[in-house]
Amino acid sequence: MKKIILYTAKNACSLASHIALEQVGADYEVRVLDFSTNQQRSPDYLWINPKGRVPALITEQGIITETPAILAFICQTWPAANLAPVQEPFAFAKVQEFISYLCSTVHVAHAHLYRGSRWADDPAAIEAMKKKVPQTVGECFALIEQELLKGPWVFGESYTVCDMYLYTVCQWLEADGVDIQSFPKVAALRQRMSADPVVSRVLARVAAG
Amino acid sequence: MKKIILYTAKNACSLASHIALEQVGADYEVRVLDFSTNQQRSPDYLWINPKGRVPALITEQGIITETPAILAFICQTWPAANLAPVQEPFAFAKVQEFISYLCSTVHVAHAHLYRGSRWADDPAAIEAMKKKVPQTVGECFALIEQELLKGPWVFGESYTVCDMYLYTVCQWLEADGVDIQSFPKVAALRQRMSADPVVSRVLARVAAG
Repeated sequence: MKKIILYTAKNACSLASHIALEQVGADYEVRVLDFSTNQQRSPDYLWINPKGRVPALITEQGIITETPAILAFICQTWPAANLAPVQEPFAFAKVQEFISYLCSTVHVAHAHLYRGSRWADDPAAIEAMKKKVPQTVGECFALIEQELLKGPWVFGESYTVCDMYLYTVCQWLEADGVDIQSFPKVAALRQRMSADPVVSRVLARVAAG
Repeated sequence: MKKIILYTAKNACSLASHIALEQVGADYEVRVLDFSTNQQRSPDYLWINPKGRVPALITEQGIITETPAILAFICQTWPAANLAPVQEPFAFAKVQEFISYLCSTVHVAHAHLYRGSRWADDPAAIEAMKKKVPQTVGECFALIEQELLKGPWVFGESYTVCDMYLYTVCQWLEADGVDIQSFPKVAALRQRMSADPVVSRVLARVAAG
């Protein structure tokens, strides 16, 4: 397999895909886009991903975007790493259900903090969106804590891509104005993963730019 | 396999899962929730899906929520129907990429029309969100028309769950203030699917309540 390339950025949801690639031992390179100079909107990058977002994964077969798609690709391409039960339709659906919730509800709730201009032009409306983020993200994490996260990992004893994605979204809680200590299982998961050498290597790589 | 049950509602994204179940010839029942009386927030339904949303699919192994998860489950459970290349990691990732875009970007853009109160409390902010929906949804469909939809189906000659989901989201374009005729490939896809007996049976079932 040719070397694959992950496009990522600091504090972005692409962290989940990055951790998964490092965990499976993939032969890959990383390109860290600088969002402060709007590099994700440069013509070169828009050729790779016309949506102007991260993550994007260049594989020898072509380009994949969207975190849920990239995570599923990694799980299926490196089945020995056991990052999701890809051959069991129900169990794999439960993994995708969790990932889809993070992507389409939790990440979207968080996005109203910095990216309100996606959905309204009026500055007062954008401020009103920011104001509600602690509540909406807090409600999402209450559901995760009470209903979705079995503990110690999302699916109990099995470490999956869901944990990597949840860890990623957890990194935003302080900015979102949500106290992670209200969610002991989530807080414990974040602490465990922060101490994982795989995760440390990935965070250091992103910080290096 | 025991009979499965799909929870759906009129004009909801659960239509995609419903079409997929009908297409594969699943032995299933449908429960149409009445959103006008907030049935999706009833204690009975919250037990099934604590998120208070549709779709939810009851299978003999348990409950699945979130459209991307249910669609993947149907593809994997009925592989002979060929609704997605589930055994090819890259091709399946491309299917999930499209589904994820509809779920986390296009549906979210549309949701700001009726569900702005999810993300802001100020009535003026909710109005500001409504105002931008024709633009945001229009931009999504421009990308779909120009970059993502190969034609005649999303993936060329293969009819997949992506078409079912795109058809579902298309149903909202008039309400969103977007002229589908600006997107000829999308318009043709909707017309073809509206004439499909499988789709007609599903629409009639939902209309019957």
